[in-house]
Amino acid sequence: MQESFFNSSDAVRGVKPLLHARQWELKEALRLEAGGVLERVNVVYETYGQLNAAGNNAILICHALTGDSHVAAHDSQDDPGWWDIVVGPDKAIDTDRYFVICPNILGGCRGTTGPNSTNPATGKPYGADFPFITVGDIVQVQCRLIDHLGVQVLHAVVGGSLGGQMVLDWAVRYPSRLRAAVAIATSTRLSSQALAFDIVGRNAILSDPHFQAGQYYDTEAKPAVGLAIARMLGHITYLSREAMTRKFDADRLAGRAVKGDFETTFAVGSYLAYQGHRFVERFDPNSYVAITLAMDHFDMGDTPKAIAAALKDATCRWLVLSYSTDWLFPPIQSRNMVDALVGRRAQVSYCQITSDCGHDAFLLPNDLEQYGEMIRAFLDQLGTDGSAATTPRIPLASAGHPSSPTSIFHSRRIDLDSIAELIAPGASVLDLGCGGGELLSLLRQRGHKRLVGIERDPMAILECLRRGLDVVGADLDGGLGAFGDNEFDLVILSQTLQSVKNVASVLDDMLRIGQRCIVSFPNFAHRALREQLYSQGRAPRAGELLGHAWYDTPNVRFLSLIDFEEFCRERGINIEHRVALDTSTGRQVVQDPNLNADVAVFVIARNGRASF
Amino acid sequence: MQESFFNSSDAVRGVKPLLHARQWELKEALRLEAGGVLERVNVVYETYGQLNAAGNNAILICHALTGDSHVAAHDSQDDPGWWDIVVGPDKAIDTDRYFVICPNILGGCRGTTGPNSTNPATGKPYGADFPFITVGDIVQVQCRLIDHLGVQVLHAVVGGSLGGQMVLDWAVRYPSRLRAAVAIATSTRLSSQALAFDIVGRNAILSDPHFQAGQYYDTEAKPAVGLAIARMLGHITYLSREAMTRKFDADRLAGRAVKGDFETTFAVGSYLAYQGHRFVERFDPNSYVAITLAMDHFDMGDTPKAIAAALKDATCRWLVLSYSTDWLFPPIQSRNMVDALVGRRAQVSYCQITSDCGHDAFLLPNDLEQYGEMIRAFLDQLGTDGSAATTPRIPLASAGHPSSPTSIFHSRRIDLDSIAELIAPGASVLDLGCGGGELLSLLRQRGHKRLVGIERDPMAILECLRRGLDVVGADLDGGLGAFGDNEFDLVILSQTLQSVKNVASVLDDMLRIGQRCIVSFPNFAHRALREQLYSQGRAPRAGELLGHAWYDTPNVRFLSLIDFEEFCRERGINIEHRVALDTSTGRQVVQDPNLNADVAVFVIARNGRASF
Repeated sequence: MQESFFNSSDAVRGVKPLLHARQWELKEALRLEAGGVLERVNVVYETYGQLNAAGNNAILICHALTGDSHVAAHDSQDDPGWWDIVVGPDKAIDTDRYFVICPNILGGCRGTTGPNSTNPATGKPYGADFPFITVGDIVQVQCRLIDHLGVQVLHAVVGGSLGGQMVLDWAVRYPSRLRAAVAIATSTRLSSQALAFDIVGRNAILSDPHFQAGQYYDTEAKPAVGLAIARMLGHITYLSREAMTRKFDADRLAGRAVKGDFETTFAVGSYLAYQGHRFVERFDPNSYVAITLAMDHFDMGDTPKAIAAALKDATCRWLVLSYSTDWLFPPIQSRNMVDALVGRRAQVSYCQITSDCGHDAFLLPNDLEQYGEMIRAFLDQLGTDGSAATTPRIPLASAGHPSSPTSIFHSRRIDLDSIAELIAPGASVLDLGCGGGELLSLLRQRGHKRLVGIERDPMAILECLRRGLDVVGADLDGGLGAFGDNEFDLVILSQTLQSVKNVASVLDDMLRIGQRCIVSFPNFAHRALREQLYSQGRAPRAGELLGHAWYDTPNVRFLSLIDFEEFCRERGINIEHRVALDTSTGRQVVQDPNLNADVAVFVIARNGRASF
Repeated sequence: MQESFFNSSDAVRGVKPLLHARQWELKEALRLEAGGVLERVNVVYETYGQLNAAGNNAILICHALTGDSHVAAHDSQDDPGWWDIVVGPDKAIDTDRYFVICPNILGGCRGTTGPNSTNPATGKPYGADFPFITVGDIVQVQCRLIDHLGVQVLHAVVGGSLGGQMVLDWAVRYPSRLRAAVAIATSTRLSSQALAFDIVGRNAILSDPHFQAGQYYDTEAKPAVGLAIARMLGHITYLSREAMTRKFDADRLAGRAVKGDFETTFAVGSYLAYQGHRFVERFDPNSYVAITLAMDHFDMGDTPKAIAAALKDATCRWLVLSYSTDWLFPPIQSRNMVDALVGRRAQVSYCQITSDCGHDAFLLPNDLEQYGEMIRAFLDQLGTDGSAATTPRIPLASAGHPSSPTSIFHSRRIDLDSIAELIAPGASVLDLGCGGGELLSLLRQRGHKRLVGIERDPMAILECLRRGLDVVGADLDGGLGAFGDNEFDLVILSQTLQSVKNVASVLDDMLRIGQRCIVSFPNFAHRALREQLYSQGRAPRAGELLGHAWYDTPNVRFLSLIDFEEFCRERGINIEHRVALDTSTGRQVVQDPNLNADVAVFVIARNGRASF
């Protein structure tokens, strides 16, 4: 086994060596996807924690464009890693629990073979002779390393940005080698806007007169200006406009003196000049070109349909995270990916984290309480599959969030069992507005297999993840297009109809997706409310059921049982079953339900073809 | 008078001459704001149409970063201008009606004195010796030209982007010289993000080894690569991500061959390479540096408070337009400017145009029907001041738009006069959700002076502009912060309360802004609705009043007269007057109004200090 402590001989000169990094050489030549062969490939990598006896606790972390193997510090004396906030003992990716592997990627410049490595054919650095590589080639090398380390099946592959593209490639290329994929702030291909920034950056490098067709290693002058320009440009795209305003706007003319010749008049200018200068010291222009080209050519399509085709071989479970102000890998791209996975009936959870930190958010502590805990919950519950044995980290009582409409199934346990009787054993269920996943958990205990929740509250999504459930973060208004016709036996909208603005389109979608649907809502023709309006002259306030007044209730739609029945009749919707409830007694109402029930539950289905 | 047809001798070599351009030389040296003097300043400009006898129909158009004096073609044989879609006979800026003046700006490279002009001190081009100029210097030169052309007061100054910065400067620097300012896709200062892009572009130019400290005019090689990089970068920022996706994503690898050495692998890359190359042929790198520096240093603050201070000397009337996907000059910046103007009680109208064309939208035909017509209406109604004599271009009957909540004042004329009686003669009025401005027009006819509307529907905003009214495009939920305490005698919210989600905060804002407020809403305890619920068991549907059902009404809040009265009592709001209406008879209701009125109108005011 050719393994040695890595001494950085192949890496960018002057960069501090990675003390804990190891080096390993592939036993055979690497055939590249686009043609070409690399005869010798070294891999520099670092590991954290221990592989357990069962060999099933390994997590591979894929770094982004300019990262390296040093994902975290190994001890208190060690240099900080690029993801110290997420990786380490008791952190979201807990190195006391998992065996974490992070290699420097192919094409990089910190030890793994790249353009600055010696070309065995010439004895000199590859430079521009380094062949065109793909994300798939990077992943191939990672897989050989995993083989070498004796890991058959990875617990998960985790990565953000370009690292997220590697995660996607892993899921398709080696489906039997990973149980889960965590794809963060990434996409199935760059937007033309993101691509354009990379192109301008490369043009700056390649046009730098010191680039000399990539053979600058033996010369004094390097294409430092071009690389710095590319880096400055990149930096702008990693930050959100909001974050830049916060950082630089208060004192915008307060530029600092920075080494080099770049403009430093403005605060943001001196920041960019500093970033550009520092980057040139640690990164190789040829690597920047090679890796961005790999990233730019990565293409699993951009529509849910094309993406679904590209991901057809994937079998793993998924956690997809995006950040609201990330405009380089915008949330819509993650959402398309999630829609594609949903369309393929993959097990996928998704959350768009509200953040003002832009693309960099996944590297920053600001929103760690959400995204870090989601990663932790997903990884930790992966094996449990939501069974009753798992203990959520927060009490069930918090399942109902006062700020979001909450299922009666969740907040009013009294009718949970009677409602559950409406659900056929083993039925696949889509729960719209699933809250913390209480109903879905119950159904899972009863042996239901395909269970999916839709929820918009991130804390409720986190709770679902802690229960090991699959939950997609989305608004109901306009978010159900990804689900196929008749994809679920049952679609549930419990106590949410009254807070949905586009009632007709949400119900249309439900009836398209579900063989049947269960809809529950408060009855605004309940005796108490009728009397309130009739004798007191007060507008009926079913919102009071949830502790709200007319002016601040989340409810925006007000209907009675017969209003809903009329709606169904007019639209050719078949009412298969109706349960009218008096929640004060917990009993079903038989006598004049439109007067005596305060909550109604309907089982409905599309009555043949749509009549409208 | 030193005036001659311009022969482009001073401009970038090889660029087609501007046949209709004229050249004029300032009679005296120009003292620059930041110090320094330009001994001789030429101005190249073009004019369209004729100055009328009264001398009050002149419009100055300020071009953006890389524009020139050729704003429109002069005849069918002439080259296209950069704003042909807006300027010309019968167009939004109608050259049959207005005398349009467009000069090339100071620092430019198409004839007006700039870095490529001859420095009288040396007999050679200024190059890097061209002094630092500001937007104010550019405006100074424009004003001298206006003097020269015999125009005392401009009908309007119009400009987008950097041209919009000139508009702002004009309004403050020469308040007595313009009646109106039209500021499009601009801001009171660049965001740090926009600034950062300019800085990277300048770094690319200044670092180009052919830049030679700006003295490249006599050498064969120019800093073409640096300028092209800057231009490519700029181009990305002018387009929206959506527009780039539309243009380049379908066939992203379909790069075309383009002259030069830039990357053309991707469709978007060859587009950028082409744009970069073409730009180098027509623009001077020194001008790019000088003008972007002027733009980047332009600073009228970024908070409404700071902006209000910067704009304190302005007295003109304003039209401000922004575009929803413009991320270089984002709508929030226009909104801050508008809020500042509102805070100063300036006459200002504003609309955010929904567009997917990014910053470039103001140069493109896609959304011209909205923004062009708004410019036309604003310019044409400027002098009429909304008086009854003006004839709107569309019939009054279209005032109520079915898609947006509509004032009873507008759609139900029957009660207009009785309601108007509640408004004291001459009172200043803010009308929230003003629709097409019917009520405000009526009040103007009655002699009210300060009248402002808030409206979110662009077509209704256009109608207000056609009536010569001041209208600010905004959502009520969260859009009233700019108005000062007690700024209006009266704030009106007519038939809109029931469609507002944040009732309490909107009412709080109203009561803060208005000495008194008028609120009207449908009464959900009206006899018909009570009976409907009580005997038929149907949830009251006041939405039916407007032709909607429970599932598609814009109404989201349901209240009765006594609900509202209770709300006022609990919150220390004083009810000064109440009008209960039966709109079927058009009469006021005296007997049990909570039962017999279908619409209520309340006059309310803050009862001393807020009790909550």
